[in-house]
Order: sequence, then structure tokens, then C-alpha cells
Amino acid sequence: MTSLLAAQDTASPARVLRCRNCGAEFPLIAIHACAECFGPLEVGYDADALASVTREQIEAGPQNIWRYAPLLPVGQDPDDRVSLNPGLTPLVRADRLAAAIGLNAPLWVKDDSANPTHSFKDRVVSLALTAAKGLGYRSVACASTGNLANSVAAHAARVGWQATVFIPADLEPSKILASAVYNPRLVAVDGSYDDVNRLTSELQEDDAFESTAFVNQNVRPYYAEGSKTLGYEVAEQLGWRLPAQVVVPIASGSLLTKIDKAFGELVKAGIVSDADWKVFGAQSAGCSPVYTAFAEGHDVVRPVKPTGIAKSLNIGNPADGPYVLDAVRRTGGSIAAVDDDDIRDGIRLLAETTGIFGETAGGVTVAVLKKLVESGELDPNAETVIFNTGEGLKTADAIEGRVGPTHRIAPSLRGAREAGLLG
Amino acid sequence: MTSLLAAQDTASPARVLRCRNCGAEFPLIAIHACAECFGPLEVGYDADALASVTREQIEAGPQNIWRYAPLLPVGQDPDDRVSLNPGLTPLVRADRLAAAIGLNAPLWVKDDSANPTHSFKDRVVSLALTAAKGLGYRSVACASTGNLANSVAAHAARVGWQATVFIPADLEPSKILASAVYNPRLVAVDGSYDDVNRLTSELQEDDAFESTAFVNQNVRPYYAEGSKTLGYEVAEQLGWRLPAQVVVPIASGSLLTKIDKAFGELVKAGIVSDADWKVFGAQSAGCSPVYTAFAEGHDVVRPVKPTGIAKSLNIGNPADGPYVLDAVRRTGGSIAAVDDDDIRDGIRLLAETTGIFGETAGGVTVAVLKKLVESGELDPNAETVIFNTGEGLKTADAIEGRVGPTHRIAPSLRGAREAGLLG
Repeated sequence: MTSLLAAQDTASPARVLRCRNCGAEFPLIAIHACAECFGPLEVGYDADALASVTREQIEAGPQNIWRYAPLLPVGQDPDDRVSLNPGLTPLVRADRLAAAIGLNAPLWVKDDSANPTHSFKDRVVSLALTAAKGLGYRSVACASTGNLANSVAAHAARVGWQATVFIPADLEPSKILASAVYNPRLVAVDGSYDDVNRLTSELQEDDAFESTAFVNQNVRPYYAEGSKTLGYEVAEQLGWRLPAQVVVPIASGSLLTKIDKAFGELVKAGIVSDADWKVFGAQSAGCSPVYTAFAEGHDVVRPVKPTGIAKSLNIGNPADGPYVLDAVRRTGGSIAAVDDDDIRDGIRLLAETTGIFGETAGGVTVAVLKKLVESGELDPNAETVIFNTGEGLKTADAIEGRVGPTHRIAPSLRGAREAGLLG
Repeated sequence: MTSLLAAQDTASPARVLRCRNCGAEFPLIAIHACAECFGPLEVGYDADALASVTREQIEAGPQNIWRYAPLLPVGQDPDDRVSLNPGLTPLVRADRLAAAIGLNAPLWVKDDSANPTHSFKDRVVSLALTAAKGLGYRSVACASTGNLANSVAAHAARVGWQATVFIPADLEPSKILASAVYNPRLVAVDGSYDDVNRLTSELQEDDAFESTAFVNQNVRPYYAEGSKTLGYEVAEQLGWRLPAQVVVPIASGSLLTKIDKAFGELVKAGIVSDADWKVFGAQSAGCSPVYTAFAEGHDVVRPVKPTGIAKSLNIGNPADGPYVLDAVRRTGGSIAAVDDDDIRDGIRLLAETTGIFGETAGGVTVAVLKKLVESGELDPNAETVIFNTGEGLKTADAIEGRVGPTHRIAPSLRGAREAGLLG
């Protein structure tokens, strides 16, 4: 298999893949685990290249994630990109939400439902497919809880690649439909996301998938770097500074660790002033292995069998669990978990106070924010950013039957009067 | 009632409301029809002010519709805006769609599903609520086929205004839910959109609604101007030039006429070179009064009772029908209508070739584009822009049961093998 650097633009600051456990280094190829210790791999950069990136360089770029290309492993040359061009999603000042839950400092919602397929997954998929192209692939596959499936199928449709998308058969109907419409090979698997993930790990070793990049497996190191752009954008949209506190939903845990990593990179590059930021994690009570490990003081995350409505967070064996614990403990943050009723309340509270209709993961994050304020773990007097990572229309079933018309009338003044609308 | 100019920033180029039928002029207040002839009113501008706007002025503005504030009636001062800040949605080059339908020139999709509530209505609602604020209102209402309801409820939630939203009771469930989540007064009316519209016309005369702005009625002249931003954006995103052909869906017809108007304004201001552009209209066969008038050579649009799945276009008595006929005939365009199966095929064709999941209105537009190419009415060798005005997730029921998983398997290699996935 081609190495990325051999094939692609040498303007990339990426140099190696490095094992996060044992530090072993590998060329920039498509591999999913360390050959020495089976640990997860991460892109290693030329530290000087990253540290020399400037605000001006970024601000001269396009109005999407690719403005941060000098800090990413792939996509420096626009012609190399396989992308719906996500990013620069709104950072919305949420004064009414802050007031509702007792925050006295600025609160912001980073709203990634504004991406092309309405979740943060467009960021990572753009990185994964751009890397896949550089590595010689023209066919992609993924295991997904829904949002990733939507994004992979849409990206593949834009460029005419074959996509094979594996999903748990019991996903939300809207998320299934929002993949199927792009006409990928859409494989419903009778099992949990963890079962699907295990299956695709096996399939990528099969000859039938030799020419297929698995976006969250053998090109995962490149894929995961896409989440850094959320951290960069928050800093830029705040006027090139870091918030004191962030609250991030946890599925695999990769999103949380990459936002933390992005903040660190910006400080090293001198793009923002150094500052203490605290990272808080949000889980659903139906799938809270990282919360449990945090609460019990463990370093190891014990897998669980997920339940509950926040399906996009239902990863019972989160790959980045230990790294989440590191980031949260190092920065002085915390992790909380909330139940399905809290999640539904969180969706509604976010909508009623900000005009943002988040998916269940957004409901988790808002409910956790509220809980952390109530418990005193989160400082109500410090600036806070929360992440809405997906779109409420995709998880409409979570609130179906709980919200609806407040009045039903005949089409006449009399109808309006009888319903009490004329006072 | 306050006049807008008295209350608000005098940087506005708006000067009067002018009747589109008899030319009578009125101050910039909240009225819904000409006091002389009951004709529709439109914002009249200081022609010199509009003609002196420059590219540089626009490009120095924010990355949303408000960069065009010098060409809009309200919102010159950021503090005056009541807005989710929509706009600058992607203009997507659609080579694979062009190839699929036999176009040999550049084809672009202006994708307004990227707006905050995922339809073009965020543009007009931002204008309407900003005007309403300037006129002293803090309560809003609307009659809606769904997208407008979503947008009004979300805008009101952001700023804490009361919203009363009237919808036909048989709307798509997703569109009802995507209004209800913001907790407005949501009034389901047993009748068609035209019935709902008639009812709200009466209600705005009632004392109970004296302090309420009806976004598509008594502040409609300001509201409608928001659609001009789609025309400005297309020109700017093409590098400050006009496309040869545009295909626009027709509901009330306002969108089509305002895009045409925007192109004319840019030419007058010298921001783009003069060019011949042709405007094409797209209707659903279930509600095609403007198509019928065009085909039969009439100047008058005869109301119809709408049927069919493209509910956001189901306005049987379109307010701007005659002006659509003018614009289409003046520019040498045409109008076509397509049936429900064509619309479903249009949704899928758009998704499979561009990665954009449009709502039924988008399916109408793609199917009409295809039809116009086949009939020879649209030049396959001229650059064309089509408008996807809304989000497929909101009209998922239109394709439910028609797309879905291609395989269903047990979570094992054996399951994958039995399904033929291993070759």
C-alpha cells in the first residue's frame, strides 16, 4: 500500500503514525493498530511545522474546515480533497439557556447540525476520504450508529465512489433513510454497534474488501484528526482565545480528546494565549462506561451493553475511553451521565432557549451541563462552550408524542375563538 | 403604528411601500395590501442608494445574509437584527447530476438546506422579524406549510418572543415536530394552506392579535425581500457574474420573482456585468396553477385545490403568480410541472449524484430540470443553477418504504458471506 506522503502533497505537516501506547512509529499508510502492541495509532506531526502556523495563514483560507489544512494530515492541495466542505458552523451565544440553568458567564453552543449532513461526522469523513484517495482507494466502508453512515454515503455520492455502510438494524428510521437515499450498499446488522464494529474489523482483512478503506478503522488515524477542527473553530470564533470550560458528548471519546488536543496545538503555535481550560464529558446513563470509570477512579474503562435513546453515543467499548479520562483529569474537568427523560428535557430546553433543534446527543450535553452546574462541578461564573453534534430531525422519535400542536381548530374565526385564541 | 424609518437605522435604502398594481405609495409601516386597490405592496428603495452599493462593501460584511444589508430594507445595524444568521449556503458544482440528465455546461445546486432550520425560509423570517422589531412588535405569527413554521418558531425561541404558528393539520409529522420542539403556540387547522392563510388574514384584524406581526401578511413586504439574498449569493459565489439559466420552485411565487429582481439590482449597481438570464419555474402536478396559466398563455392564475406530496409548494392561490408569469416570459424561460413519482425520482437522483438530500420541493426542481432538458426548453449547453430550498429529513415520508437497507445480515463473517458481500 502506498504511503500518504509518497502519494500526496508534501505540504502536509504529518510525518508518521505513532502508537499511543508504546510509541512505535509507522509510515503514513492504512493500518488500524500498532504491529508491536496492538495499541491505537495517531498521526505524528513535524512539531516545528505545526508550531509555525499563523492566524493570518488560517484566515486566508476557505470558509470551511480546510482553512485549518496546515494543522491537518491531508488536504493541503484543494484538488486532493474528497469533501462536502463542512465546518465553520455557528457558535451561538446562548444567554437564555444560561439564564435558565443558572450560568452567570457567557455560554455558547457550537452547532454542528449546520454541517452538510447535519452532524460533526462530516468533518472526520472529509479527512478519512481525502486520506483514502491519497492512499489509492476509491471505495469506502464504515460501521456506524447513523450519523457516520449518512456522511460516508453522501460523500461517496458526491464523487461517485462505492460506499458500503454497516449499521445496527435497530437504528432510528430517519438515520437509516438518510443513508439509503444516497444509494450505498447499506447493510443492516442484527446486533449492537459494538457487534457491527467487530464485524467490520474482520471484514477489512477479507480479500473482498482489500481495495476498500474503512473510514473508522484502517484510516482511523486520519479520520480522527478531523475532530480537531471543532476546537480550532471555537477558538477562532471567540476571537482567537480559549474558553474556560467545554462540555463534550462521549461516544468513542475521540471527539473530546481531539478538541483538547486542538487547544493545545493552538497554544504551542502561539495562535492563542495559554490558558487553563477544563474539559467535561457527557454520557447517557444507558451507556456510561467512561463516566463510571471516572466516578470510581479507574484508569481502565470496562465495556457495557448500551441501552437508551441516545443511539449515536451508544458505544459500549469506547476506543478512546482511557484518553478521555486523561484529558478530563489533567484539565480538572469532570464527567456526568443523564437518563432518557433528562435527555428529552435537554433537547427541549436547548430548542426553547436557542432555536437549535439538537439530536439526542445534544440533549445529553445540555442535560449534563445543567447537572454539572447543579452539582457545583462546573463553574457558573466561567465562560463555557457546549457542543451540539447532530440534528434533531434525525432523532425525532425521541420526542415524538411528547411535543405537538397546542391547539387544533376549524378554519374559521369561530374555531379560533372556541380554542381561546382570541382572549 | 411606528414607521420603520422613524424607528430604525437611517442607513436603510428603503423609502416607501409601493403597490405593485397601481403604484400608490405608503410609509414603511405594517400593512398587507394597498389601501387604494388592495394590490400587493413591495418595498421601494432609493434607487441611487442601491445603485451605489459595491462588491467591496458586501465582501467586508459577515458570512451570512447580512453582508447584503445595503440592498435590504432592514438590519443595517447588527443590534437591530432578529436573526439566526442564515445564508451563504453552499453553491455545489453538480457534474455527476449534469451528466445524468444530459447537460454539457456547468450545473450548480444552491443548497439552502444548510440554513439554520434547513430551508430558505430562514432568510425571509430574519427580514420579517427584524422589521417587526423596528415596528415595535415583540410577538409574531404565521400561516405555514411547515418550513416557515419551523423558522418562525426557532427565531422566536432564540430571542424569547411569543410565536403563534398556524399550520394545516395534515402536514408531514417531521415538520410539525420541528416546530413544536421550540414550544410556540402551534395551531393545527383542519383545512388546506389556503384555508389557513385566509384565517390568519382575518385574525390579524382581531384585537387579540393587535400587537402581533404576521410575518407573511402585514410585514410581508419586508419578509419577501429576504429571498433576494439567494440571487445575490449565487452571483457572488460564481465570482460576481450571473448564470445563464435558473430553475426555481414555485409556491407563492415570491422566491422566483425576488431572485430575478436581485439579478437586476446587481446589474444596475454595476456589481455584475449585464447578461441575459432566463428564469424557469418548477411546480408539482398536484398544484400547478402557474404552470397551467403559462402553458395556456393566460395572464391570470386560476386558483386550484392542491394535492400531492410536495406540501411546501401546495399553495393553490399563489400571491405572486402573475409576477412569476411576467419574469418567466420577459426572460425567455419556461415553467414545467412533474408528478409525485417524478418528484421521488428527483429526490433520489439529487442525493445519488451530489450527496444533497433535498425535500420534496428539491425533488420537484430536479425533475423539472430533467424535463426541461428533455423537451429542449432549457439549453443543455448553458450554465444553470437550480435551487434546493429545503431538507429531505423534513419530508422523509415521501420516500419511506422506497429506500432502505440493501442487505440484512447476522453479525458474523458467515452472515456477510451468505449475503454475497464477500464476492
